[in-house]
Amino acid sequence: MTQPTLIEQLINAFRCLPGVGPKSAQRMAFHILQHGRSNGKILATALEQAITHVKNCQQCRTLSETALCNICTNPLRDNSLLCIVESPADITAIEQTNSYRGLYFVLLGHLSPLDGIGPEHIGLPQLSLLLQNKQFQEVIIATNPTVEGEATAYYIANMFKNNSAKITRLAHGVPMGGELEYIDSNTLHRALNGRLAIN
Amino acid sequence: MTQPTLIEQLINAFRCLPGVGPKSAQRMAFHILQHGRSNGKILATALEQAITHVKNCQQCRTLSETALCNICTNPLRDNSLLCIVESPADITAIEQTNSYRGLYFVLLGHLSPLDGIGPEHIGLPQLSLLLQNKQFQEVIIATNPTVEGEATAYYIANMFKNNSAKITRLAHGVPMGGELEYIDSNTLHRALNGRLAIN
Repeated sequence: MTQPTLIEQLINAFRCLPGVGPKSAQRMAFHILQHGRSNGKILATALEQAITHVKNCQQCRTLSETALCNICTNPLRDNSLLCIVESPADITAIEQTNSYRGLYFVLLGHLSPLDGIGPEHIGLPQLSLLLQNKQFQEVIIATNPTVEGEATAYYIANMFKNNSAKITRLAHGVPMGGELEYIDSNTLHRALNGRLAIN
Repeated sequence: MTQPTLIEQLINAFRCLPGVGPKSAQRMAFHILQHGRSNGKILATALEQAITHVKNCQQCRTLSETALCNICTNPLRDNSLLCIVESPADITAIEQTNSYRGLYFVLLGHLSPLDGIGPEHIGLPQLSLLLQNKQFQEVIIATNPTVEGEATAYYIANMFKNNSAKITRLAHGVPMGGELEYIDSNTLHRALNGRLAIN
């Protein structure tokens, strides 16, 4: 086995990215070397800078360059609301709705006993401390509507049932723009159960 | 406008890759920072190394770390055959067939007068010199079967029509595993015109 060439090394390195298979990795490597060397340099620098300087926020655990993230330190945010999400990308998605002004807590995963991921791996002791120290009026559990996400939501709700804060869960139902005909029966079941009066 | 954060800079940098939109770029950045920091470092290093050290082969113009690439310097290759392709990725594709043992010449593009890409931009003077210095028995033009690729093939064939080498073109026709019913009529037309006797 000969030493892989630099091009082969670059193609292999691109394969660590999510959703990138052998063909895409090759296309990326050739693209950078043929048409995008300056962009490639920018990418290499951005990677190094971000890997070195981006840590987790000490309060909410999201990715942040500073000890506390922009949201935790923003005095305009509503300190009485906490939203629990699985990943930093979920914060981006919720922020884009412009309909939530409270704080966040990021689990950085979900409970998965088979993979050895227990409460302490998803920061629940830290969440416990946060809920003790700050008086939230409402805690919204916004984990993904998957089996693991639901189990995690249930576990967290149970853990803090004696807390003074109201514990809520994101609504599940028919997505906007969807057609009833094509919605899976589980979603439709949740939509029926969660029906609201038109006022 | 505030200075973009390191995470935003990383997401923007990923968007220079082909086929990567805003969502994929964000997914890649969060993935690297959450689960793949060591892989991210390997990628940054591979990018820098490749960008610094990979140049074009002086004979065939493909991407190579050395002045002459592995294929041009390989004494086992057939020196009487030359295959002209548009990009280094085409060499990889042809090499994977294991059915060609000759040399290559990479145009690094195709003729495109509207974009100001003329014969000198796709290395035709260098190709001319190569064909003068080496006596090839056959020159296979393997540009893409697109309008530009076909025009480039025609231009090259015309340019070297007085050369002693036989000038050939890749066969066009029905792809293996394809169904006639779904083949476009242009391809079927070429397949009919290029029909071969079964011997």
